[in-house]
Amino acid sequence: MTPNDWHYEPFEPTGSAIGFRIKGKLDEVQSPFQKIEIYESTDWGNLMLIDGAMMLTTRDNFFYHEMIAHPVLFTHPAPKRVVIIGGGDCGTLREVLKHPGVEKATQCDIDEQVTRMAEKYFPELCESNGDARADILWDDGLAYMKNCEPGSVDIVIVDSTDPVGPAEGLFNAAFFADCARALKDDGILVQQSESPLALLDLIKEMRVEMGKAGFTTFETLPFPQPCYPTGWWSVTMARKSGGFDFREADARAKAFDTRYYTADIHIGARHLPPFVADALKA
Amino acid sequence: MTPNDWHYEPFEPTGSAIGFRIKGKLDEVQSPFQKIEIYESTDWGNLMLIDGAMMLTTRDNFFYHEMIAHPVLFTHPAPKRVVIIGGGDCGTLREVLKHPGVEKATQCDIDEQVTRMAEKYFPELCESNGDARADILWDDGLAYMKNCEPGSVDIVIVDSTDPVGPAEGLFNAAFFADCARALKDDGILVQQSESPLALLDLIKEMRVEMGKAGFTTFETLPFPQPCYPTGWWSVTMARKSGGFDFREADARAKAFDTRYYTADIHIGARHLPPFVADALKA
Repeated sequence: MTPNDWHYEPFEPTGSAIGFRIKGKLDEVQSPFQKIEIYESTDWGNLMLIDGAMMLTTRDNFFYHEMIAHPVLFTHPAPKRVVIIGGGDCGTLREVLKHPGVEKATQCDIDEQVTRMAEKYFPELCESNGDARADILWDDGLAYMKNCEPGSVDIVIVDSTDPVGPAEGLFNAAFFADCARALKDDGILVQQSESPLALLDLIKEMRVEMGKAGFTTFETLPFPQPCYPTGWWSVTMARKSGGFDFREADARAKAFDTRYYTADIHIGARHLPPFVADALKA
Repeated sequence: MTPNDWHYEPFEPTGSAIGFRIKGKLDEVQSPFQKIEIYESTDWGNLMLIDGAMMLTTRDNFFYHEMIAHPVLFTHPAPKRVVIIGGGDCGTLREVLKHPGVEKATQCDIDEQVTRMAEKYFPELCESNGDARADILWDDGLAYMKNCEPGSVDIVIVDSTDPVGPAEGLFNAAFFADCARALKDDGILVQQSESPLALLDLIKEMRVEMGKAGFTTFETLPFPQPCYPTGWWSVTMARKSGGFDFREADARAKAFDTRYYTADIHIGARHLPPFVADALKA
């Protein structure tokens, strides 16, 4: 790759591509699980690719990390015990730990090398790794959820790569059943759920699999995410029973800064565009 | 270009790119103003490119056309006379004419060939061209606004290409002053205003130019737009005085279908993320 070349990522399932202008490659490691590459870009800071797929950029990861963390944490009535499956870059963990009520947040990513690369090239995402409430494991997330004490967890956040390769098992009913068992009755599962424009079928399939595992109510929240295919992404929350009561007053009174998330953004995201709402109803 | 090739569009100002998987090229014409190309894609329907820049796809143009038309039409108290500068694909005109109160909508695009290509490859966008209230001109939008009778227009919609080439003059104070003169006192100007992530400076500069022309209040609304750089786009409304009073009840009671726009989406878009709001305040 020559200086100021372009990195293009064609995404077969959507027939669309994204790309970034690159200054050069900073690092590459082949872990036991996947190839991790770090590039320096001209306008987006550093980029992390896993097996050739864009994972995050310095400039725009805040959309994703804020939206996978704060909506679910401001929906659960009093989240104390949080588990993050995947999330090895530690950006989700950092957002979770901004909530003072959280007593313990376990991050279980299968690949230690993702965290080592994040520490080096995205140090801002790792700034809460030393928090006494942070419990950072490098282990199999499937096994972790299977062995979790039943009814011990308030929130499970599945912050995974796409449903291929190491993350494939994180999108089926067997895994979701383990999440359901680990969660308390009022617990909430949240998972990154791909593009609400081009991958609506995947969101529907995910909800079906969650349904087989005992989840009965769902809420999908869209948000912009330039470094993912179509630039528009989503998270989906699931509960075993009951609806999603947004703690709006607490969100308005939050004592920490965010760049994208606000109570109003949260409320806005709950109102799906008709073409998404209709597809998810069908 | 071979079948099932990829068309990539690197966008220099943002250092990011988009792309689509292509079945083949359907048409190409060099008008007196620009080169217009039509491609058939595998997943996005037809694509129109002008001078190499993606203008619209069959699949995702509804975001843009709905968001440049309905928010301003549901903000003006009683829009009867609408002028569209640019908009040669006729998709904005179609959305405007869904409002029964509109008595006349003039579309003035410099390039007849854009409309001819739209008629052939995006016929659904042209389905209201025969409406008795539609007034379709192919002429210089700058001259049209300069010669408009003062105080005769309720809404001016600037549905232009990027601020280079033929559209460059549509982003400066001289043009905006002509818009201000043509508008009634309670009239509203709305313009596509590029990416609120990567092109925030452009939105700020546009507001400065609008301010020089006598506009005093502004409202920028973001929305997803996968076929434009970063996948996140915006429109900016401007008024000579007063705020933006959303006719929410009318929007909720609208008698026509939309795929993205709703009253709730409109309300959501009015709440800017902190990083955008802060930048526009600065």
